[in-house]
Amino acid sequence: MLWSGWGDPAKAAELPEPVRKLLRDLLGVREPAEPSASFGEVRLHPPALSPPILADLRTAVGAAHVRFDDDARIRHTRGKSTPDLLRMRAGDGSEAPDAVLLPGSHDEVLRVLRVCAQHRVAVVPFGGGTSVVGGLVASRRGFAGVVALDLARFDRLVSVDTESMVAELEPGLRAPQAEQLLAGHGLTLGHFPQSYEYATLGGFAAARSSGQASAGYGRFDDMVVGVTVATPRGTLELGRAPKSAAGPDLRQLVLGSEGAFGVITSLRLRVRRAPAEKVYEGWRFSSFKGGTAALRRVAQEGPMPTVLRLSDEAETMIGLAKPGEIGGFQSDAGCLAVAGYEGEGEDVAYRRERTAATLSALGGVYLGPEPGEAWARGRFAAPYLRDALLAAGATVETLETACFWSGIPRLYDAVRLTLSAALGSPDPSGSGGGPLVMCHLSHVYGTGASLYFTVLTAQTGDPLGQWETAKRAVNEAIGLAGGTISHHHGVGRDHRAAYAAEIGDLGVEILRAVKERLDPAGILNPGILIP
Amino acid sequence: MLWSGWGDPAKAAELPEPVRKLLRDLLGVREPAEPSASFGEVRLHPPALSPPILADLRTAVGAAHVRFDDDARIRHTRGKSTPDLLRMRAGDGSEAPDAVLLPGSHDEVLRVLRVCAQHRVAVVPFGGGTSVVGGLVASRRGFAGVVALDLARFDRLVSVDTESMVAELEPGLRAPQAEQLLAGHGLTLGHFPQSYEYATLGGFAAARSSGQASAGYGRFDDMVVGVTVATPRGTLELGRAPKSAAGPDLRQLVLGSEGAFGVITSLRLRVRRAPAEKVYEGWRFSSFKGGTAALRRVAQEGPMPTVLRLSDEAETMIGLAKPGEIGGFQSDAGCLAVAGYEGEGEDVAYRRERTAATLSALGGVYLGPEPGEAWARGRFAAPYLRDALLAAGATVETLETACFWSGIPRLYDAVRLTLSAALGSPDPSGSGGGPLVMCHLSHVYGTGASLYFTVLTAQTGDPLGQWETAKRAVNEAIGLAGGTISHHHGVGRDHRAAYAAEIGDLGVEILRAVKERLDPAGILNPGILIP
Repeated sequence: MLWSGWGDPAKAAELPEPVRKLLRDLLGVREPAEPSASFGEVRLHPPALSPPILADLRTAVGAAHVRFDDDARIRHTRGKSTPDLLRMRAGDGSEAPDAVLLPGSHDEVLRVLRVCAQHRVAVVPFGGGTSVVGGLVASRRGFAGVVALDLARFDRLVSVDTESMVAELEPGLRAPQAEQLLAGHGLTLGHFPQSYEYATLGGFAAARSSGQASAGYGRFDDMVVGVTVATPRGTLELGRAPKSAAGPDLRQLVLGSEGAFGVITSLRLRVRRAPAEKVYEGWRFSSFKGGTAALRRVAQEGPMPTVLRLSDEAETMIGLAKPGEIGGFQSDAGCLAVAGYEGEGEDVAYRRERTAATLSALGGVYLGPEPGEAWARGRFAAPYLRDALLAAGATVETLETACFWSGIPRLYDAVRLTLSAALGSPDPSGSGGGPLVMCHLSHVYGTGASLYFTVLTAQTGDPLGQWETAKRAVNEAIGLAGGTISHHHGVGRDHRAAYAAEIGDLGVEILRAVKERLDPAGILNPGILIP
Repeated sequence: MLWSGWGDPAKAAELPEPVRKLLRDLLGVREPAEPSASFGEVRLHPPALSPPILADLRTAVGAAHVRFDDDARIRHTRGKSTPDLLRMRAGDGSEAPDAVLLPGSHDEVLRVLRVCAQHRVAVVPFGGGTSVVGGLVASRRGFAGVVALDLARFDRLVSVDTESMVAELEPGLRAPQAEQLLAGHGLTLGHFPQSYEYATLGGFAAARSSGQASAGYGRFDDMVVGVTVATPRGTLELGRAPKSAAGPDLRQLVLGSEGAFGVITSLRLRVRRAPAEKVYEGWRFSSFKGGTAALRRVAQEGPMPTVLRLSDEAETMIGLAKPGEIGGFQSDAGCLAVAGYEGEGEDVAYRRERTAATLSALGGVYLGPEPGEAWARGRFAAPYLRDALLAAGATVETLETACFWSGIPRLYDAVRLTLSAALGSPDPSGSGGGPLVMCHLSHVYGTGASLYFTVLTAQTGDPLGQWETAKRAVNEAIGLAGGTISHHHGVGRDHRAAYAAEIGDLGVEILRAVKERLDPAGILNPGILIP
């Protein structure tokens, strides 16, 4: 993983000339004056951990698994939000952990937590490092240091129960590793978020991830039937049945807890038979409103496709609906929808036929498989594009929300208007024509859906300040419009205030009560999730 | 509702002669020596609330809504488990509340909670009064009194959002009332537990109910998209979207909290279009094991019917699979399964055809609609039968659990063997041939299912002690076999110890931490849920 950007450096994206022209002519983007910092130029503070603390940590996990070389520290600094990347590109390593720990077992995690509680060392559980909400930037204030607790050694498929269709998997497994191990048994999780290539199962659970095929395979939280958590106070072991009426579902308190309550060390996940067939197809709607009504009908009356998404006019025009092919602009393309079906033949045929009938009846024009397949090919490409855009002098970021269907138009307008207003004059002296705000509707449910926005604008001289102002405004707008602050990115640090407003004072008190009970010293991801 | 039994006294069931014969000859059941107490014979303690407390309560909800007449108190005493009924039939009113409050608004509930916290009065939220796990028997110890907080005045359909397919309903609505109000909009919840005729929406939510059509409509907890809760510390307002990644799902902490954290005063529920068509059909399997494998295949490969259940040999033989027609015994009937389909024509046809193909391929013999329709007609009749059985001198009770598919055979055996051993010699002097233990598998999921047991045995001279011994043994057996202590009845008082073992010490500490934060005086349903 590129330390200052996304993914495999060998796969870096080039911006096609039409995109460069759009940036220049439409958005007023100019090459940045300063080049990005090199790895060697990153400024790091000296590791803060005292010798007695280090000695205890070495005892806990073995000396070979306590690292504090620059490489390890830089690669565990922050996540992959645009502000994170802007800081890394500027050579700012101020939020690097003092050490990186690589425990090898549940008991070693318990030991690390005991040592850290004793010495007041903050612990940041670290999976794929792909947080885009500041979920890996713990507060240092009042602590003797900060360590990243990397779960990379938790990488086994522990067991497969094909009768129950449940697999026990370790949280440090990256999604492609997990899929490969399961494929050996003819199984799949079916979880394909945009972070798929790097994110880990533990991160999916801790941040309530939702994948692009959630219409068919469900969200990650739907897949978790059992979970083991190491906390400073001991072990939590939850999940004896698919569903239970035995009290509150405490699994749902662990899911979304973002490392603030404990460290997930084992997951029992529902698995599915690997699909015999996969079909992705494109549909055109003349308006986002009309397309939304059609997707709603499908979500409410079924049967559900495996993938169902709709890009608005702007996203369709720019071609971001097919990220691998960006640049082939079409000004009158309407709104592209993708419907995908995975499963065995008869089931795929039935769902496809019924969905097609509904989409057609509500104004959809069938475009054949090409746009669907193009989307599927390019589905993990967008984060690579961001690196190229940042280098070219553009600010690009994504954000997402969800609400009930009747609230979608208001939420859609609120986010677009707020971003346009906040980023309208990127540079007083510049020729920028305001931001480009694109959106797709995805992750449909019977009662609502998520909206996922991508915003593109010219960098000012202070791109971090520029985005922070816009982000504050849009967080507030989402709250006022009745949306949740995140449908699948999580809370981290960036959504903490908005999340507090969403669940109210008493909701925050519940989280604090649980936190204080499980983590009395407050060492777990301080500053994340809980205000 | 009959004060000492189930439902409408006019619908009281008669035991057919074949059943009487079976009770007599096979189980050694004899008419009880003592007749059941009459309403006037119930022994009540004098209401304990002091004049200042009563004055404050009257101010909180209005004098007309504070009742402490015998009728109100007796009708709010305990729930509807067999031990509850045995105590009522014996004239034991010792657990009656001192008063019954009928608040009319969220603010009035908040006021009641403030008054009760101030005076240390225990509060039992009361909906339909149908708990079968001791969920309505709060501890008096250390309290100035106990009040039942009856939500009967919370009986409105507040709003319907047909675009989002979400309705706001008040928690005191009984299920048939709610269905009737929704039917006016062409909608349904699709929630039909055995307690349907009397239970309330608030109770469904507070105890994580699951209905007989859960395969198609989901569990009640799946239906709750938003909830308002009055707590002694103020109001919780949760649910802005179908799903969210904004932290732990706090709705799932309220669902299943059984009144220990607060009082649910509003529910936003997912609704469905009322089905155009309903088809219920019967299938015969030669063994419970074979039928289980067939239902598992359907649950894992889909499409899902709306109803899917399988009675074991004993339940099929006795005819309890069709409770309205009990007594038509067939000794070689195998195992009866019922598959039901609700929806619009094409969808029903497809699911029916696919399910039938799977069931046939795995040994199911199609019996036509008659057994399915008989089941549907009699689906709410079993609790009436219980009254007749108790009067005849039999002890009859139900219990349920759930686990993953691979654990089903062990769990099934463990419960049956334990009940048989615990109830094997009902009376040292008697001719009893041990209990009759019957089971059905229902509420299927991809990863597991629930098992629902009915046990029938001759009463000893101490039927309460007889059942308590058996219940303790079977709770322990369920835990050892890896099942959850309840799939849809809840925890209450009867499952409290087993629940604590299931979630572990740290799980219990989480519940206590939340409880202490929301209800510092500990007035809400003390002794229920949380050990």
